[in-house]
Order: sequence, then structure tokens, then C-alpha cells
Amino acid sequence: MLVVASPVEVRELSRCARKSGRTIGVIPTMGALHDGHVSLVRYARADCDFVIATIFVNPTQFGPNEDFSRYPRTLEADLELCRSAGADLVFTPDVTQMYGPTAQTSVRVSKLSLPFEGAHRPGHFDGVSTVVAKLFLITEPDRAYFGQKDYQQQLIIRQMVIDLDFGLQIVTCPIVREPDGLAMSSRNRYLEPDDRRIASEIFQTLLLAESLALTSNLTASQISVRMQERLRSIEGMELSYAEVVDEATLEPLTDRPLEAVALIAVRVGTTRLIDNMRIRFSNQSP
Amino acid sequence: MLVVASPVEVRELSRCARKSGRTIGVIPTMGALHDGHVSLVRYARADCDFVIATIFVNPTQFGPNEDFSRYPRTLEADLELCRSAGADLVFTPDVTQMYGPTAQTSVRVSKLSLPFEGAHRPGHFDGVSTVVAKLFLITEPDRAYFGQKDYQQQLIIRQMVIDLDFGLQIVTCPIVREPDGLAMSSRNRYLEPDDRRIASEIFQTLLLAESLALTSNLTASQISVRMQERLRSIEGMELSYAEVVDEATLEPLTDRPLEAVALIAVRVGTTRLIDNMRIRFSNQSP
Repeated sequence: MLVVASPVEVRELSRCARKSGRTIGVIPTMGALHDGHVSLVRYARADCDFVIATIFVNPTQFGPNEDFSRYPRTLEADLELCRSAGADLVFTPDVTQMYGPTAQTSVRVSKLSLPFEGAHRPGHFDGVSTVVAKLFLITEPDRAYFGQKDYQQQLIIRQMVIDLDFGLQIVTCPIVREPDGLAMSSRNRYLEPDDRRIASEIFQTLLLAESLALTSNLTASQISVRMQERLRSIEGMELSYAEVVDEATLEPLTDRPLEAVALIAVRVGTTRLIDNMRIRFSNQSP
Repeated sequence: MLVVASPVEVRELSRCARKSGRTIGVIPTMGALHDGHVSLVRYARADCDFVIATIFVNPTQFGPNEDFSRYPRTLEADLELCRSAGADLVFTPDVTQMYGPTAQTSVRVSKLSLPFEGAHRPGHFDGVSTVVAKLFLITEPDRAYFGQKDYQQQLIIRQMVIDLDFGLQIVTCPIVREPDGLAMSSRNRYLEPDDRRIASEIFQTLLLAESLALTSNLTASQISVRMQERLRSIEGMELSYAEVVDEATLEPLTDRPLEAVALIAVRVGTTRLIDNMRIRFSNQSP
């Protein structure tokens, strides 16, 4: 497995792989890898001939009061995980290699970046779409792998790929969960033992939404209220949002659609956690 | 010469050319081709194995009161010019092929898009950088050719290529002029005979700036004032700006630098005209 910090060198290696007829898969990450990331590398390994993982803690997607400086950096362990999951190359640029002194270009996906995480983290998704565009242009992949855990993010990246005509395919992979249902996240390591226990209620609330959609005749917005009530009742948890929305546009739903996505964001202790579940509604009228 | 409207098909043809070891050059245009465009195709022909010209009148770079609907469309003549200049492929998408119904992504080069044309045409350069990013991603070239005539535009595209890590080279080609010095432009055909005569004063004013930089001890800002005085004195011409500025940043210059660029925009009749010249200062102190 190669470990390369230079964008120019990575592009050359990718072009060399393509020239020899190999398909290229990329997994963009910020490091602090867990089993969710490992599963992305494994999906790419199964689909592609040349697998590139990228590790870059991107400063432009952190707000001024967010955790950029304390975001976990675990490079040695990350490289070991990439190696064992079958990556061929890990791209590990530093900030100066990604942003030159006169850098001033941004990629914005306007509508999808506004609600939910976009509303709570102004500028976050501009940072994400810009750095992902750069990573795509450096690695020139056929396929790029993202986790469903960051549901809004993968929608935004899909929209960017369509709108800017990136010649690649986005693959969204299932959420990997702890035994108690907590979605894997690099930020879970911030959680104190008490917080960790409380955090598992997020998954329980998603299961509640799934069950209400299937077995009750509540509308999407009524289910949203039930999710909010449940999360608000949990001591030590601060609700940011809990909504059942359109799975493609993230717009509010008032009736009973066929399918939807339930989105949750909460704060537990000092840690913001997000999760989601795609849900299906049974054929009952409200 | 192939003429193809489908983005997907153009990308496939480009990838096919690349696979066979050919280098790819692209010339993005809005059609209404003149000798300036022809020279770009010829430069590409001399450098590259597979030459793609694109013809697309991009609605997103026109303001609400600009000339999108009356912008000249001369497809048959354009194709003939491309053929005679040696293009291998002309990409002629329509608006629905370039912008889907949910399109919402834009590329913005912030600082360089603010002054001069950016100040006079709000949103213009966001439209330009977005569509050029798309054209690059569809055609996947090794080199892209732009005219120096749109000086600010080629600076913005160069910055975008650096900032987003496009793996291609921007080639800026010299301005092609009419015998009296008027820079070739698709909008010159709007000019009435009287306007046409007046318009040649733009080039004379650039020559004045060049000569003052070489033979006087005036500073850049003093030369700007002399250009403005000259252009304001011409009946039938409305000055938009005339400035000697830093050739890389477009920032104002007060002293005598080694090199600079003189930028001019005026309105003659109903037509906005721009032009520029890179100038060198002699070794005299102010």
C-alpha cells in the first residue's frame, strides 16, 4: 500500500492505473477511521481495481466554534485499517498542499445545503463540496464511496456530481452500528460512559419512526413530532432536529408518502451526533 | 469532424482518444465565431492530438438586462470555421443538456470575480466559472485555450484550475485585432458604422498607456487617469473603466511596477466593449 501526500503524484498514480485498464475507487475520509470507514474501503475493494482512501481533516468544513483543532488524528492506526481493508493507496495531503495562499474558489450546492446540518453549521457544506470536488479532481475515480450516516452530505455530493458533470458514480453504503445501535462515528470517542449510554436512544427513536410508518396511520409530520417528544424526554440529550422528510429533496412531508428518510441530530454532553434511517410507509391512509 | 450534442457521448469520445494515447485540447466558446476563436482552434491543433471546440450560449452568465436572447447564433458558419481550423469534434449541447431541472451547484472564484466586469455584471463570472468547470469535466482535456481579450476571465479560470486541482493546463492566446486595432469580438457585429469608427479609439488608448509606461515617468494610477481623460473626450463613447492594475491580482497600482495590465471597458451605442494590453514600465522613477 502506497502512502502519498502530494496531489500531483496521486493524480499520476491514478492516471497510470487507468491507463493500464484498471477502474478506480476513492473513499474520502477525515481519518479517525472506524468500522464504518473500513466497510467503505471493502465495498470499493470489491468493485474496483485500484482503491484510494484519502485522509484529510479539512479545515474549511469546520465552523469557528467547532472541533477542528481537537478532531481526532490517528494516522498510524488509520493506515493499518486501510491496509487491512485492502486499499492500494492512501492520500494524506497537508493543509498547505490542499489550499494555496491565494485559494478563493468554492463549490456550492445551494438548496440541499440549506436545511438541517447546513442550518446548524453555516458554511459546513460549502467546505465539504469544495474539498470533495478537489479530491475527485486529484484522484479521478470511476466510483466514490460515502456512508449513509451523513445522509445530507451524500445527497449534496450526488447533486454536485450531476450538476458539474463529474464522470463518476457515487455509491452510498449502509450505516455501520455498534451492538446497541449507535451509528459509528469518529466523534463517538468524545462520549463519556454516561453519554454513550444515552446516545443509543437515537437509534431507538429511528426504530420508533420506522415502526410508526409501518404500523400506524400517522403522517410523516406526526411521526416527526413523536420522535421529537421522545428525544426531548431523555435527560442529558439536547434535541437539534428530528424530522421525517423527502428522501431526495429533504423537504417537509405532511402526508404518508411511500418512502422517506428520518433525520436526527442531537447534542449529548459536548458532542453533536447525527443519524438517519430510510423508512417505508404501509398502505394506510391517515 | 464530429458534431455532438450529448455530454455523455463527448466524454466517451474524449476518453477514447485519451485511451489511444492522444492529448486533448478544448476551446470553450459561445459560438458567433470570429478570427480570434479560429486562432484558438489553430493553437490547439498545433499542440494537441484531439481538438474539441464547444459552442454553448450559456444563459447563467448573462444578467437579466443583458443580450442573452439576441446574442448572435451562427451555428452553420461556426461549424465551417471549426472544420477549416482543424477541430476534430464540436460539442453543441442545448440548455437542457447542460442544466437539469434540479441544478443548484455553482463554482465561485471569489476575489478575482469582484472588480471590473464582475462589478458591472453581477453573477457573470459565477456563471462563467461554473459552465467552464462543467465543460472541463465533460471534455476532460489536457489543455484549454482562452483568448487574452477576456483578461479577467482567463485569470479567473486559471485560479479555478489551481484551486480545484483540475489536472489540465490553461493556455492564454494573444488578442486578434481588426486592421484598425479593434479587438475581435462576437459583439462587434452589433456596432453601427459610426460606432465602429469610434470603437477603434479603445486600442489607441491602450497604445497611449503602453507608450506612457515606456517613455514617461508617470505612475500606473496617473496613466489610468490619462486613459480615462482620453476615453471621456470621445463623443459617442461612455466610459465604464480604464485602469492600469496588477496583472495577477487586478489590484490597483500606485507606483511604477515592472509589468501591469491596462484594462478598458466602454459602451459604444448599445454595445459594451472590453479590451486590454499587458504593458511594461521602463526603469524610470516617478
